[in-house]
Amino acid sequence: MNYLVLDKIIKDALLEDIPNDDITTNSIIDDKSICSVDLIAKEEGIIAGCKVFERVFHILGNVQVKFFKKDGDKVLNKEKIAFIEGNTRNILMGERVALNILQRMSGIATNTNKYVEKIKHTKAKLLDTRKTTPNLRILEKYSVKVGGGHNHRFNLSDGVMLKDNHINAAGGIKNAVRLALENSSFVRKIEVEVENIEMVKEALECNVDIIMLDNMDLQTSKKAIELINGNALIEFSGNVCLNNIKNIAELGVDYISVGALTHSSKILDLSMKNLKVI
Amino acid sequence: MNYLVLDKIIKDALLEDIPNDDITTNSIIDDKSICSVDLIAKEEGIIAGCKVFERVFHILGNVQVKFFKKDGDKVLNKEKIAFIEGNTRNILMGERVALNILQRMSGIATNTNKYVEKIKHTKAKLLDTRKTTPNLRILEKYSVKVGGGHNHRFNLSDGVMLKDNHINAAGGIKNAVRLALENSSFVRKIEVEVENIEMVKEALECNVDIIMLDNMDLQTSKKAIELINGNALIEFSGNVCLNNIKNIAELGVDYISVGALTHSSKILDLSMKNLKVI
Amino acid sequence: MNYLVLDKIIKDALLEDIPNDDITTNSIIDDKSICSVDLIAKEEGIIAGCKVFERVFHILGNVQVKFFKKDGDKVLNKEKIAFIEGNTRNILMGERVALNILQRMSGIATNTNKYVEKIKHTKAKLLDTRKTTPNLRILEKYSVKVGGGHNHRFNLSDGVMLKDNHINAAGGIKNAVRLALENSSFVRKIEVEVENIEMVKEALECNVDIIMLDNMDLQTSKKAIELINGNALIEFSGNVCLNNIKNIAELGVDYISVGALTHSSKILDLSMKNLKVI
Amino acid sequence: MNYLVLDKIIKDALLEDIPNDDITTNSIIDDKSICSVDLIAKEEGIIAGCKVFERVFHILGNVQVKFFKKDGDKVLNKEKIAFIEGNTRNILMGERVALNILQRMSGIATNTNKYVEKIKHTKAKLLDTRKTTPNLRILEKYSVKVGGGHNHRFNLSDGVMLKDNHINAAGGIKNAVRLALENSSFVRKIEVEVENIEMVKEALECNVDIIMLDNMDLQTSKKAIELINGNALIEFSGNVCLNNIKNIAELGVDYISVGALTHSSKILDLSMKNLKVI
Amino acid sequence: MNYLVLDKIIKDALLEDIPNDDITTNSIIDDKSICSVDLIAKEEGIIAGCKVFERVFHILGNVQVKFFKKDGDKVLNKEKIAFIEGNTRNILMGERVALNILQRMSGIATNTNKYVEKIKHTKAKLLDTRKTTPNLRILEKYSVKVGGGHNHRFNLSDGVMLKDNHINAAGGIKNAVRLALENSSFVRKIEVEVENIEMVKEALECNVDIIMLDNMDLQTSKKAIELINGNALIEFSGNVCLNNIKNIAELGVDYISVGALTHSSKILDLSMKNLKVI
Amino acid sequence: MNYLVLDKIIKDALLEDIPNDDITTNSIIDDKSICSVDLIAKEEGIIAGCKVFERVFHILGNVQVKFFKKDGDKVLNKEKIAFIEGNTRNILMGERVALNILQRMSGIATNTNKYVEKIKHTKAKLLDTRKTTPNLRILEKYSVKVGGGHNHRFNLSDGVMLKDNHINAAGGIKNAVRLALENSSFVRKIEVEVENIEMVKEALECNVDIIMLDNMDLQTSKKAIELINGNALIEFSGNVCLNNIKNIAELGVDYISVGALTHSSKILDLSMKNLKVI
Repeated sequence: MNYLVLDKIIKDALLEDIPNDDITTNSIIDDKSICSVDLIAKEEGIIAGCKVFERVFHILGNVQVKFFKKDGDKVLNKEKIAFIEGNTRNILMGERVALNILQRMSGIATNTNKYVEKIKHTKAKLLDTRKTTPNLRILEKYSVKVGGGHNHRFNLSDGVMLKDNHINAAGGIKNAVRLALENSSFVRKIEVEVENIEMVKEALECNVDIIMLDNMDLQTSKKAIELINGNALIEFSGNVCLNNIKNIAELGVDYISVGALTHSSKILDLSMKNLKVI
Repeated sequence: MNYLVLDKIIKDALLEDIPNDDITTNSIIDDKSICSVDLIAKEEGIIAGCKVFERVFHILGNVQVKFFKKDGDKVLNKEKIAFIEGNTRNILMGERVALNILQRMSGIATNTNKYVEKIKHTKAKLLDTRKTTPNLRILEKYSVKVGGGHNHRFNLSDGVMLKDNHINAAGGIKNAVRLALENSSFVRKIEVEVENIEMVKEALECNVDIIMLDNMDLQTSKKAIELINGNALIEFSGNVCLNNIKNIAELGVDYISVGALTHSSKILDLSMKNLKVI
Repeated sequence: MNYLVLDKIIKDALLEDIPNDDITTNSIIDDKSICSVDLIAKEEGIIAGCKVFERVFHILGNVQVKFFKKDGDKVLNKEKIAFIEGNTRNILMGERVALNILQRMSGIATNTNKYVEKIKHTKAKLLDTRKTTPNLRILEKYSVKVGGGHNHRFNLSDGVMLKDNHINAAGGIKNAVRLALENSSFVRKIEVEVENIEMVKEALECNVDIIMLDNMDLQTSKKAIELINGNALIEFSGNVCLNNIKNIAELGVDYISVGALTHSSKILDLSMKNLKVI
Repeated sequence: MNYLVLDKIIKDALLEDIPNDDITTNSIIDDKSICSVDLIAKEEGIIAGCKVFERVFHILGNVQVKFFKKDGDKVLNKEKIAFIEGNTRNILMGERVALNILQRMSGIATNTNKYVEKIKHTKAKLLDTRKTTPNLRILEKYSVKVGGGHNHRFNLSDGVMLKDNHINAAGGIKNAVRLALENSSFVRKIEVEVENIEMVKEALECNVDIIMLDNMDLQTSKKAIELINGNALIEFSGNVCLNNIKNIAELGVDYISVGALTHSSKILDLSMKNLKVI
Repeated sequence: MNYLVLDKIIKDALLEDIPNDDITTNSIIDDKSICSVDLIAKEEGIIAGCKVFERVFHILGNVQVKFFKKDGDKVLNKEKIAFIEGNTRNILMGERVALNILQRMSGIATNTNKYVEKIKHTKAKLLDTRKTTPNLRILEKYSVKVGGGHNHRFNLSDGVMLKDNHINAAGGIKNAVRLALENSSFVRKIEVEVENIEMVKEALECNVDIIMLDNMDLQTSKKAIELINGNALIEFSGNVCLNNIKNIAELGVDYISVGALTHSSKILDLSMKNLKVI
Repeated sequence: MNYLVLDKIIKDALLEDIPNDDITTNSIIDDKSICSVDLIAKEEGIIAGCKVFERVFHILGNVQVKFFKKDGDKVLNKEKIAFIEGNTRNILMGERVALNILQRMSGIATNTNKYVEKIKHTKAKLLDTRKTTPNLRILEKYSVKVGGGHNHRFNLSDGVMLKDNHINAAGGIKNAVRLALENSSFVRKIEVEVENIEMVKEALECNVDIIMLDNMDLQTSKKAIELINGNALIEFSGNVCLNNIKNIAELGVDYISVGALTHSSKILDLSMKNLKVI
């Protein structure tokens, strides 16, 4: 991961949590005190973000983290994930920020993995979206990959996608695709969001690279896939959940995107326990 | 809300989503194009963050937002929440960032409100924690209030709380409280986290302002509350969920803190629809 | 253009040129003085950056700029490009920064246009590269488009290109392409840089989207183009200049990229003259 | 050079080129891979910016650079300038940014040196101007010195220069000089730009420290120099090029300033070649 | 102290003093030169800020500082406080910034200590205020503690204080206290500023935690203290100076706040002397 | 004053004082409340910083400030300086920051003016130094001018001064001056600090522009001034106070610099009173 971006996130988060000083820790702990503490899982899941967790303490300084797991590993309830040793003040000051990040990242990886398990017998790949937490996208898209998913475009500057509002604004798919081909870089693929069979046909006539079936029912989707017939990559999107993703994948789509991976995953519960002053 | 903090969050989020240009929008929409679009709820919930949503477009410029709801209002599925009108490019560029923020804030308010409903017949007040999304704490703590909850301390610099690791590091509650009183500002209340009856007694002897019962079973909690007997404010924390919060509140605690409000609320589904070029 | 990025460039540039105060202007001009001044071309060329020029004075405040030309227009020697009126101090303080930006952007547009003129009878399109001035890429890539050129990828995060060093590091084209397909987002096209016919063949076997002929002589290029035979887009790169670009374009390549557009264009000479205090 | 300023330039440039991740490199190279690569000159010139080049990789981390040349040395076509060894990902990620900076700086040093060679038999010294690339002034003024030139003032805050527009705005040289002496710090020299003999006389009457002959023809310049007769330092400026600088220098001016050094130098072509995974 | 906050202060200060380069030092000192120099007191006082002084040189690099004193120690005129050794350029570049900070911090500690000495026979504790130097609050509040004083709230976000203007705006103490209790976090104590006996009574009826006697004469203060009778902590504020603080303290107040500690302390005169090139 | 620099100072100060929200004001004041308040002097002095005070409220928004005085005017105890009207929350939130800045600036102007009064019958001009508050130099140097003083160089990048440590490091005045002339820009004057008559002679032989008599007694100073005899500007520095500055000025020096203007001025006491909700 890009440390220049990562460090900004971490430093901002540390300043959010400690705008001047940690008044509890500074009041009761000598700045030369050394301790050790364990990072423990409080439920089962997939761990993601080990290097980010470590980086929090690297930035605070004088703390070593030894991980027994690496990103993508399954952890069990009560399992010890890491051993942290170093300056007591810095460990206590960084605890919440480090856990807040690691818990969120692991929560996303864990949730992603549940979706991936449902469709692993098909050719469909699971995708994230841009429905990420503001200013944490780099961490969240990474976590999706750790959980077995794949990344869609990262932002509005690096992928062309013509959505309903774009198509409305441009007055139809044909005009929108024409303008996109004319004005965007030739290194971009063109993706179009379609809502019905008419739009599928129109998109096919434009030779777009990717067609996204948006909120389509299974029957219409099936018809769309037959029409496309391999002439474009197919992404399915909209109202996908753990209950219906298997059926969608078995239709034969190439990709299924799920906003909930990043906007509604619960965290993985982790804790720092057994602090011992040395 | 403090606009200096808010604007930094929004500008960072806009740059995350548009590091150089929105290549889709710029390719197909003229920079003089004007349009209108509706903000629609796609499920029922409590709305929070109207001013933040509006601020995204204020920063992009030349877009007006007219809200039909205000923070704290209930919205129904398919209900129109706002009418947005202005520069088409800016509306399309800001759509995702504005929704990402509003959906998260409203998700927290909605979830908070469910907890509040469960305990409104008791004196207990619902609290948030520091288990917030890194760098969005100001938005999330605000959303908890919109949903009917109350805020605990904002960060490590503005409240003294002696947690298990602090007590371990300081060698017991008495020493920790003594040092906290000596070294922190007199404007601070002292809160101590306790795990059993022995610790409750020790905390009481120290005359602390707030005692937090951490992960205690109901029976022990009851005994603790009797012992405290009004000599300290009581906060209950740990493994609180919608199923057990009623029972906890009815024990007679003053406050119940729930990390899940900010670390595991799902979003409220919202959408911008019916774009019309003017 | 993205004003959040643009404003950062302009504000940094103003602070570079005025870290505290403009000691000359502040010493001799009253802060209520108003003046007008003309922006004049001192040589013929293509203008680019009008909005950026204007934005410099918008940021300083109380200055109006009226342009008689727009981006892409040809200007003649001595022609008046704009009329500026407002606070004299702000006009004098912003003059150099505004001109430095406009001159560079117009220089790139002018130079780009010379290359475009040479190949306009062919299907080849002129491309820029990442050999841009550090921290001004958004301005420079925009200027290339104003001059009639097209943009290649914007940065390392938004396009996959396997260059010589990548291929070396990955142990050959096949391995590199396989890994790129596996690990990068499906929205990316895959481009491979090749130096000889063997590499062209290898790239074709991998079904890459774009093949870049790097520093190839005309004869080998011709053979490569025949081999590719429409199965990949073809970019030509390396040592392209105004003298040889026509011959290259006539080979039938799709794109020709020229680093010199952004790394070695001379500026277009412009000046602010005829200042009159009002 | 001031590392606080330098590091900001480099970090901004790295983020411009890698806003999230290097998707090519990350896809194909293991993050533990180590390699070496050579920095090679592709044409003859003067090298400038070795420490800046090195700093790019220092910021990325785990890369060592060993230079065989130092700033100001001449390099020949195909000559090896440095040997780089370290983390393959970081070398590939930093390559373009490091080269973009080093090439620009060396291009300026090389071009400057050509002008210096033309006038080294005279007392005239070559000067830069404020016509530098926005936000890279510190690098460009340094490069001028490496090439044998001298620096004029750095910015509007650190030198008093009364140019045509100032003189117009102040209503003549006398008033402008009087106000400048009154209101600017006594540590500043006063420089006045003159366009004809009348203005030279007026400037002399004001006892200014430096007189700049702006766009003056050789004959008028000669007359001006005689008039000044050692009572002020003389700078010549305007339309100076490699063809006419010798004649200007031989007039006996003290300084000749050339905007083209920083606004229109082409880069020195350099390349990183021979990457070997270790 | 929080290094993330501290480093921003120091880096900003270094850039303020060296926006591009130290033109004197760079002109006359080789960048490999090594020297030593002594930090000397030029008057008697209490030293504060040793780690901040050291951090300035740590940020510049290649300089070691060995302190013979620590924060809170008394230093005598001409006493040697520290020995600095390292890169000559960095020592000369950092000298003024490092001294400016250390002198200010030590000045505050020294002045604070004078006040503390006057009241050490009473129970009253000396407090600082928010009348600190903009953007240096963290350093100044720390210095007050080094001098023997105590800290009041740090900022508007971390303490509730109802001052005259708040009470006016809210329409009286009762309403203000009621709203503060309702809307601020339960971890906050409520402090009210009172100006006369009526307001004291009103504050007592509201059960506020802290009552601040603002600009009250001794006689009224005495009466107020009797009325409060231990039912609230008492802070005295307004026009406190070295001449009257003893009398105020002997009234029996708990805290006395003095804005002058941070807004009007003179510096402690320190100097770097005996530079020896090694 | 440069608003880009000024706004950074103000925004940082507002964030220092309100890292998230003003918990007192937000709890008790409706965000639509409007009020007026007076800015009152609580002692006599010279006002400086009116525009900065106003800018604080401009940044917070919806507040108008009408000044009855302008920078440099004398204000009397209890005199009304300005009338402020607007959003009550913003007025209360900005009060402390606005006053902290205005009080400091006015304190410096007032103190400066006392020194200026002592020497106004002589040719000597009063100068500030670089002993300013870190990150507020632009405000403090401006305040010195408002009080009737003059500015020395602004920072290490914009003036050459060879001080004791430089001379030591360079091995004497002659070598130091030679190197400074060779390596610094020709627009710089050269100033040398001397401590005795031998050094004065050496400086004169080097034809330096300015000689600074550092901590010299009156008799030696007199001798130095005779020796210099108009061949360099003379600055006197070191241990200057209100008691001895008259005698120093009457020696006939050109400039007297006083660090205490910026490092040890007490504030001018100002207050915002008579808040009335409208």
